[in-house]
Order: sequence, then structure tokens, then C-alpha cells
Amino acid sequence: MRATLLYGAGDVRVEDVPDSVIKLPTDALVRITASCVCGSDLWPYASAKPEDGPARMGHEFIGIVEDTGTEVTTVKRGDLVVAPFAISDNTCAFCREGLHTSCAHAQANFWDGEAEEGGQAEAVRVPLADGTLVKLPVAADSALIPSLLTLSDVFGTGYHAAVAGGVSERTRVTVIGDGAVGLLGVLSAKRLGAEQIILMGRHQARTDLGREFGATDVVSARGEEGIARARELTGGEGTHVVLECVGNMPAYEQAVGIVRPGGVISRVGVPQYEEAPIGFGSLFRHNIRLAGGPAPVRAYIEELLPDILSGAIEPGKVFDVTTGLDGVPAGYQDMADRKSLKVLINP
Amino acid sequence: MRATLLYGAGDVRVEDVPDSVIKLPTDALVRITASCVCGSDLWPYASAKPEDGPARMGHEFIGIVEDTGTEVTTVKRGDLVVAPFAISDNTCAFCREGLHTSCAHAQANFWDGEAEEGGQAEAVRVPLADGTLVKLPVAADSALIPSLLTLSDVFGTGYHAAVAGGVSERTRVTVIGDGAVGLLGVLSAKRLGAEQIILMGRHQARTDLGREFGATDVVSARGEEGIARARELTGGEGTHVVLECVGNMPAYEQAVGIVRPGGVISRVGVPQYEEAPIGFGSLFRHNIRLAGGPAPVRAYIEELLPDILSGAIEPGKVFDVTTGLDGVPAGYQDMADRKSLKVLINP
Repeated sequence: MRATLLYGAGDVRVEDVPDSVIKLPTDALVRITASCVCGSDLWPYASAKPEDGPARMGHEFIGIVEDTGTEVTTVKRGDLVVAPFAISDNTCAFCREGLHTSCAHAQANFWDGEAEEGGQAEAVRVPLADGTLVKLPVAADSALIPSLLTLSDVFGTGYHAAVAGGVSERTRVTVIGDGAVGLLGVLSAKRLGAEQIILMGRHQARTDLGREFGATDVVSARGEEGIARARELTGGEGTHVVLECVGNMPAYEQAVGIVRPGGVISRVGVPQYEEAPIGFGSLFRHNIRLAGGPAPVRAYIEELLPDILSGAIEPGKVFDVTTGLDGVPAGYQDMADRKSLKVLINP
Repeated sequence: MRATLLYGAGDVRVEDVPDSVIKLPTDALVRITASCVCGSDLWPYASAKPEDGPARMGHEFIGIVEDTGTEVTTVKRGDLVVAPFAISDNTCAFCREGLHTSCAHAQANFWDGEAEEGGQAEAVRVPLADGTLVKLPVAADSALIPSLLTLSDVFGTGYHAAVAGGVSERTRVTVIGDGAVGLLGVLSAKRLGAEQIILMGRHQARTDLGREFGATDVVSARGEEGIARARELTGGEGTHVVLECVGNMPAYEQAVGIVRPGGVISRVGVPQYEEAPIGFGSLFRHNIRLAGGPAPVRAYIEELLPDILSGAIEPGKVFDVTTGLDGVPAGYQDMADRKSLKVLINP
């Protein structure tokens, strides 16, 4: 079968690899029908060293169950399923609390941590299939597939940012980042009733989609100027919640500059730093809170699914390019160059 | 009148200073009857440079109103009052939300920011008297004074740690620090119903008081060993909430090591660092949240007062030494040497 491998920075290849097969009684084998490239894939694409590769890529997919291990009970051959970017048992104490990304099961993992499996491929072995996979009540060629695919990561991640930040009707929100996660952070803040949603981004096609998703204001300036502009839009106070959907230090510093006293910075962009300012001069003085982390998207699927099925929301609009597996290397480069927002793959 | 001044590290003096007087129509003049030394006073006591001094000290006090400005309406001459460590108007948007330490009024300030006033003195000018002062329904010689004095800072600060950390009947809590704030963090966690309260401290007299306040376990080990021991007490998971009541980097690192996935580190010890680990390897990976800051103790006084008046709780037990103003310099040194837990001053 064919799969996507990252050999090093800027070096993505689609190659023949050994077929994925069932290994454990809790596994399922899934023939992938839709997958995509994630903004977080761009971090290793920018910095991976040849000695770390080749690494199998892709952690967002929809597919058809082809085979199941003897212990799998909730999905069966022929089912169309979506897989969150984290493998989990959905039964441990953390999963029951909705924190599937901290699942205590020994096989729980991020897809990116599975050395021989990946979602940008023709097929994949899914560990803990009962916990991980969610059956979808549509056909593999449904027009809803792009939106349903966002349940595997990008929509759930934007939604997690908003939920972890405590967005409600009584909150004003800033969203930092006009990537797909940021835009779906906007959609999520809108869904949770935020009274103001300031989107910070400078790419017009994206911020236009942000407005369509519910942004009330767009700030294209960055750094100190961007902070000043966002504060201006809130009478100088800053916003109750800042969704930090990028993950680098300038984005964090911007969040610190914009958040209101007593407010929350909710991070879902994977931090590209370990140390950052959190002392008296940044977070402590005004009781600024910090929240977020890898989104337990599994926890949100049941909640978000009905509005996608009804057409009330269309998170799939973040996909602006569709390609086959052959087009994946170019898809990475186009996303890195910000020519594409998010690339959908039909293997 | 006499007041306490910090001239530099290790150099506290009690000297004659100009009498405090009413300056603005919103001021009150208060004759101080009880005051104390704060754990946070020990940071400048350890590190202040002579060129920064002399600085007036003290931000916790009870006293009798001696005079009021023409606009003051809620307190009058002869009233016994307690003052939070932050001056606030109690009417702005932030005060109404219970975040008095971020009061938007131009005169809002920490006492430590008032160059010519301080609580370790015979008298003090209180700005924004209507917002700041709370009348106490007892006499100045009441046996309840030590406990009532803790409403000015140390109890409200421990309580803020617990509230900001979301302590409830469904949470296990670790308290880092056996100083007065930590011990009252224990009392606060108990009050909020925590199912387990692990106190980390190595000073037996203090941890004994911690047990009296509600600690279910005491861990005297620090660093990696302390982390391992606290985790052991929680079946390896860590606690839902960690109250970080010290403020230095080892305490923060200990908190990161002990907090449960999805849990909260609530800081009230003034951070003696600006940068700290908050990336994938510390907070992000398991959705650890960060909360806390300077406690809006004004917001908690009405809530905590009845249980002190009824004798249900005795936070004043944290005072183990009482002195006059003359004894203040020795009181600082004894607290710095950890010979005294907290020094009460009768000016």
C-alpha cells in the first residue's frame, strides 16, 4: 500500500510500504477514504532532521472498516468511521472525564507516535478500535465528508480552545491565528455565544471565511500594534478569552498583551517553546489564567456531529484544496507557503 | 508617629515619620490596633537594595477610624475596620466581578505601592476608604482579632488559591508551602470540601497546625522525592489541584510534577521568576491549567467573616508571636529564619 513519509525538513514522499494488518484483537483495519494535512504537520516539515526519519504522517482520517480484531464490538466491516488524532480506550478515568488525550491505557497514543501507521495513506491499523473510532451515519461519498473529517482534529481542536477558555455569552474573545484551527476557533466561539470575536490574521481569504464563521472584527496588525488595536476594540480592557491557535512565542506574547485581567489564554497551537513569561509582569499580576492542550476531540464528536449532519455548520469550508496521495508533497509545500489553507486528501 | 521602614536587605527599622493625614475627600485616617508581617515582606527583606529604600512596610491591618474625608459614607469615626492589602473602589467592573486587585480606579493600588503609607505603623491614611475598608462588628480588644486580621491578606490569599484552583468535594488537593498562606490554603480546601489534602512541608509545628486545619497527609520530602511521594498518595495520578503558596521555581516545578492531567496549578505565592516551563513537556501535554494571582481578598470578606465570628474556624492560629512596633525588626528576622510562622503587631 502507499503511505506518506517525512524524510526530513521539506522532504515528504509518498511510497510503497508494507500493508497495514490487524495485530491485536482490539485493532481494526481501516481503508482510508478521506484524510488531510494538519497545521501541526508543518512543524516537523519545517524542522525534522534526516536522522529522525522517515516518519509516517497523518493523524486525521475517515475510512471504511475492512477488518476487525476478535474483541472489537462497536464497529464492523463496512462501517464508515472517523478517527480522532489520539488513540484512546474511551473507558478509563480520564476518558470518562472527557480528557481522551490523557487516556491511561498502555496502547493510548497520538497517531504521530505510531511509528508504522499514519492517516495520509491508503489504509491504517487502528489500535483500541472500540474506543477510538466513531461510526458515521453517511456514505463515503457524502458531500458532508469534508465537514465530518474536521471532527478528527481541526474542528475539535478549535472547539477545545473555546471550551477550555470558558467561552460563553458573557465573554469577548480574541482568536490568534487565521489557520484552519483559528478559523474553527471562531466558529466554536460563535457556537458558544461569544458577544465579540476578534480574529487576528492578515490573509484576506482566510479572514473572510473567519467573518463568515462569526468573527465580528478582524485585526491584521501584529505585535504591539496588533495588541493596541485589539485592546481598542474592547474599550482598552482586552478580551475575557484569547484562543492561541498558533503555538509560537510571538502568538503567546500577543495573547498576554490582549487578555483582560482575570481572563484566560487558551492554547491549542502546539507550543514551539518550553519556557515563557508567566510571572508578575505577564500572567500573575492580573490573575490571567492559562488553559488548553492537545484537544480530546473524541469527547466532542457526539456534541458536534448533529449540527454537521443537519448542515447548520460547515467546518469543512476550511479545505480549499483536494488532492490524491500523489499531490501530498506539493500540498505540504503549499500549506507551508500559505498558498493553501488546508489540503484534503482522497487516497 | 512611628512606622516601619525597610532600608535594604535585612535592614528594617521603626522610626518617627510625619503623621498620616487625610489628603483627599475619599480618604480615611485609621489608628492601627493590629497589624502583622507578611511572608511576601520577606522577599524584599531578602533582596532590597539600599537605593530602593527606605520603603514603608505593612499591608495587613485592623484599626479604628479616626477621621474621614467629606465624601466617605460607609465608615465613620470610631468604627473598627479591616483593610485588604489592595486599595480598591469596590464599584468598578473588575471589583463587581470580584477582582478587586485589578480595580480600574486611578487611586487603586497595593499598599506596598503607597510610598508614604504602610500598615506596620501607628496610623495610616486609607485611600478610597468606602471601597477598601470593611467594618468589623467587634471591639478592638476582641479575642477574635487575630483571626479577623487574616481577612486582610493571608486567609483571603489561601482562600483565593483554593477558589481559583476550583477546589470542590470532587477534588484532591496538594498544598505546597507550610507558611501561613499554605496552612490557610489547607483550611480553605477543607472548607470547600476537598476529599484529600496533601500538605508539603517539613516544619513539624506548622504541619501539625496544617493537620488541625484539615490536611489528610503530610509530605516532608521535596523535589523529585516529594513529587514521587505525593503521587504515591494519589495512586500515581497526582492531585486535581495544586495550591502553590511559595512563589519560587522549585515550588513551581514541584507543582508541575504533582498535578494530575487536566488539573490546575493555582499560584498565590508572588513569583520570584518571570519565565518558567509551560510548553509541551510541562503544562501543555496533559492540559494542565494555571490560575491564581494577587488575591482579591476584599471579595471574600463577607463570605469568610461569619465563620470567624461564630468561632467555627480560627485562621488566627497562624500567629505564633505577638509584639509591639519595637519588636518588628526582630520579627522579620525570626520569620526569615523560620523561627516564627507569622508575627502579629500591636502598635
